[in-house]
Amino acid sequence: MYRTHTCGELRLADAGRTVTLAGWVQRIRKMGGMSFIDVRDRYGITQAVTDDPEMNAEVAKLGREFVIQVIGTVRERESKNPKMDTGDIEIRIEKLNVINPSVTPPFTIEDVSDGGDDLRMKYRYLDLRRNPLKNNLILRHRMAQEVRRYLDAHDFLEIETPFLIRSTPEGARDFVVPSRMNPGEFYALPQSPQQQKQLLMVAGFDRYFQIVKCFRDEDLRADRQPEFTQIDCEMSFVERDDVLDMFEGLMKHMFEVILNEKFEEPFLRMSWNDAMKFYGSDKPDMRFGMLLRDVTDLLKGKGFGVFDSSEYVGGICVPGCAGYSRKQLDELTDWVKRPQVGAKGLIYIKVEEDGNIKSSIDKYFSPEILREVAGRFEADKGDLILMMSGIRAKTLVSLGTLRIEMGNRLNLRDPHKYCPLWVVDFPLLEWDDETQRFYATHHPFTAPSQKDMEKFFSNDKEQEAEVSSDSYDFVLNGTEVGGGSIRIHDARIQEQMFKVLGFSREDADYRFGFLINAFKYGAPPHGGIAFGFDRFCALFGGQDTIRDFIAFPKNNMGRDTMDDAPAKIDDVQMKELYLKSTYEK
Amino acid sequence: MYRTHTCGELRLADAGRTVTLAGWVQRIRKMGGMSFIDVRDRYGITQAVTDDPEMNAEVAKLGREFVIQVIGTVRERESKNPKMDTGDIEIRIEKLNVINPSVTPPFTIEDVSDGGDDLRMKYRYLDLRRNPLKNNLILRHRMAQEVRRYLDAHDFLEIETPFLIRSTPEGARDFVVPSRMNPGEFYALPQSPQQQKQLLMVAGFDRYFQIVKCFRDEDLRADRQPEFTQIDCEMSFVERDDVLDMFEGLMKHMFEVILNEKFEEPFLRMSWNDAMKFYGSDKPDMRFGMLLRDVTDLLKGKGFGVFDSSEYVGGICVPGCAGYSRKQLDELTDWVKRPQVGAKGLIYIKVEEDGNIKSSIDKYFSPEILREVAGRFEADKGDLILMMSGIRAKTLVSLGTLRIEMGNRLNLRDPHKYCPLWVVDFPLLEWDDETQRFYATHHPFTAPSQKDMEKFFSNDKEQEAEVSSDSYDFVLNGTEVGGGSIRIHDARIQEQMFKVLGFSREDADYRFGFLINAFKYGAPPHGGIAFGFDRFCALFGGQDTIRDFIAFPKNNMGRDTMDDAPAKIDDVQMKELYLKSTYEK
Repeated sequence: MYRTHTCGELRLADAGRTVTLAGWVQRIRKMGGMSFIDVRDRYGITQAVTDDPEMNAEVAKLGREFVIQVIGTVRERESKNPKMDTGDIEIRIEKLNVINPSVTPPFTIEDVSDGGDDLRMKYRYLDLRRNPLKNNLILRHRMAQEVRRYLDAHDFLEIETPFLIRSTPEGARDFVVPSRMNPGEFYALPQSPQQQKQLLMVAGFDRYFQIVKCFRDEDLRADRQPEFTQIDCEMSFVERDDVLDMFEGLMKHMFEVILNEKFEEPFLRMSWNDAMKFYGSDKPDMRFGMLLRDVTDLLKGKGFGVFDSSEYVGGICVPGCAGYSRKQLDELTDWVKRPQVGAKGLIYIKVEEDGNIKSSIDKYFSPEILREVAGRFEADKGDLILMMSGIRAKTLVSLGTLRIEMGNRLNLRDPHKYCPLWVVDFPLLEWDDETQRFYATHHPFTAPSQKDMEKFFSNDKEQEAEVSSDSYDFVLNGTEVGGGSIRIHDARIQEQMFKVLGFSREDADYRFGFLINAFKYGAPPHGGIAFGFDRFCALFGGQDTIRDFIAFPKNNMGRDTMDDAPAKIDDVQMKELYLKSTYEK
Repeated sequence: MYRTHTCGELRLADAGRTVTLAGWVQRIRKMGGMSFIDVRDRYGITQAVTDDPEMNAEVAKLGREFVIQVIGTVRERESKNPKMDTGDIEIRIEKLNVINPSVTPPFTIEDVSDGGDDLRMKYRYLDLRRNPLKNNLILRHRMAQEVRRYLDAHDFLEIETPFLIRSTPEGARDFVVPSRMNPGEFYALPQSPQQQKQLLMVAGFDRYFQIVKCFRDEDLRADRQPEFTQIDCEMSFVERDDVLDMFEGLMKHMFEVILNEKFEEPFLRMSWNDAMKFYGSDKPDMRFGMLLRDVTDLLKGKGFGVFDSSEYVGGICVPGCAGYSRKQLDELTDWVKRPQVGAKGLIYIKVEEDGNIKSSIDKYFSPEILREVAGRFEADKGDLILMMSGIRAKTLVSLGTLRIEMGNRLNLRDPHKYCPLWVVDFPLLEWDDETQRFYATHHPFTAPSQKDMEKFFSNDKEQEAEVSSDSYDFVLNGTEVGGGSIRIHDARIQEQMFKVLGFSREDADYRFGFLINAFKYGAPPHGGIAFGFDRFCALFGGQDTIRDFIAFPKNNMGRDTMDDAPAKIDDVQMKELYLKSTYEK
């Protein structure tokens, strides 16, 4: 028995008890003839104290992060620390044992550390001792338990699906695993258990979930991980709203038990079309307004060449920014011209405090027209209208990016304010110019909307492009946290889908044959959703970086700098796998 | 909305309600002018009925496993079926919709199916529709929730560890994953999160758990899977008994909530030495007695050559089998001579009903000695003593195997009787003749027993071989369900361990450097355990085969016959991975 109590639990009521604590040396202080040790464990910090000269000498030998055991008596502190749960008491040290010494850590184990990113990644086990990271992982633990509690209570069964599966890439690249027993062949690690969970529906399990690791071998953008965790769910005998209602319930449960936020009203549901039109994004941040307005009808065809040659003219109204200087506006113009935003320029209309209108297109438009435009934006005195023009789809996205930027600049994106949203009716298909074919926006098993069935079976590319799907995303504060769809359960529709995607029958059979075959034996109508658990945790933690919510993350090269994976394997194993590396440095 | 109720919930109190059910056609019967459909879903079966001629015609078009929707009125049945939860009612069909037809399934979806193993594996999604498999997975779901509930309530944090880690094989072979971004290098899939969970202890998380997939690329014996699930746990500031007490609590909780079995008494704890001595096994089945007895002192050196040249003579006493015929004994002798048992022969002593003693070694020993032997076995009238001799360690194991066989033959191994046991104090090291070195019995991080520290540091192979370890197995009904140990947290002991295992400093550093390094920064004393979740579920389900408790298992060639994984990947991907297959058919 190394301890009778943790470092977080002793209170005034324990005064007089003899206790044994064990933990890490957080800090040592000396004052006159007294020594104080802050002993830390996961549960808190307790102060141990001595005024005995011999004991003082022992304390002097301790260093930061030594693991020690303190035996002593609990007593009331003279100067209490109301910031600490254990701040009313201290331990009078009777015996002090060093359980394990520590070399000096490469950075301080404090809430704000002096270690750089790379150093903290390499010594991740030390970084995780710091409260911010520790608390992130505790939050994640609590969220996982609550997700399961809710889904279990709603008759979902947690069923484990295999990690070594058949490679059926259609979208991202699979990680593969060579099979020694089946030489020349490979398993794939699942990008998601999509096909398996659909088979579980065919098997009649009705409601399935799993909190499960998924894998994607993509070039890593910032804050993406090659392995990530999904809350993966599927339900049978459901239509879209049945799925949304169920998982809106889950989200409300999570908001309430984890964040103490009650949502009495239903979450907003917005079509993909409206999301693009009003927010220039398929994942609108609803914490602030600044909606996109279409002013094409007002400004096109009026003799201003830039607008006249544009499919679309639109903008946003930034509140209270009419005072922006020439310099600020130039900087913003440069900002939108960056390839990440891709605009050709930025046009402004200022509604000044005195009601006057000033604009970079004063020369081309009468004050009346500009005033009408300002009216369309419901611009108040002091507001700044920023406009772009061009191809509609592209300009909407650029404006959406600008909107988010202005939200950031005006501090309208409070990480502790939560605005959930369902975006529905995504397009079924996306055209790829390079390969000259459609790709499934979601995946090839997503059902086309009932209302667009005629277009879907038209065998006409233009009509096919207009088909919307029975799909949905759960969006929180401008981030897609979850996405899913009603699946195709009708063999005839699935066959047409493969045809639209340009798969030959042989190709479809080779990749998805087992699933197509399964659907012949009485597949129920079904649909589901998957939530990105890492991102979900980060959002609930009020933070941006998913890496801080993962115990042992990888860097942007897919490398774990702590254990230095990946690494070479020995020749024997390469031979057993019938593999040869063709890489030469 | 496809249904108002499931097929398992309607009762007499619902009579008169109009309901909509959806599910699979289990069975159709016709009687006079009436048709009956058993509609099945995960929750049960409900009978739907019609006497309408038109509706009868519609019903006649249905086939087994069609997915249908039935709208109708609940009414009391005339002839109730007390075996079914819904047996008091039936649905008078008002409307019948075929949601999805089914081709004829390749085997019957009944509790006992007519499908062979291979066929049922290929059509796993149909096999899973059968009650026995469905109920296994529901049991597994419940067990997973309860394990987490208990551990969460005891302050364990569920922390996900990475699946793409560094390969550090020491024991079984790793599955590896080529890294595209780091050409020529590989990740390994974890055989267990051993090092990661120890790092979490170094990080101060104090109590960790995870229900997690692990991977081992071994030639598959019957009922082994290349991917399997562990309940993986680790605790800080603990000694052996702290760990055993905690997980004995978990097991008692599981027995109570899942099986309604209360264990008031502590589980038995037995040393590895005693387990081998009395049961000839490190995982004794405690459901029956038939303990091994050592009679070397009574029978060796008495002039019978076979015994005189043996290190050990021992046996078991099989109750009530003195009547075994010559033929039965010969068959048993052949059985023990099989290479799987490896005995050279079998000697018997019968204590007949009249008290007379008959033995295959009558010629060599006096009735007095044989009677003394029978006394040592506490043999009653009618009992049969079976004996073997040879090298002690080997003979104990052969006798242990025979004991289990006799337990099977006498039906003493009731799968619904549960006898849990802790086996403790395993040897730290196992000598391997082939490579002429020690291997860690458990793993290289297991702490040697405190009492054997002198031998451990002796640098003398004979003394090292005698060192026992602070390890433990949880054994249920002759099966190892869990195993773990107190880990080394002292750098000096870890260094010696690597030395004993014959690792050079460079080798140890290359493989485990990150862990050795981490231990310099204040590693707390810690220990843990991992339970084989698949096996645990099977035992709680009263069954032998773990495959029946896994949704999508693989066969003995590591192949999923349903999706036909593993498979070839295309040349583009091979090139991206800088890999070439050297395999030629």
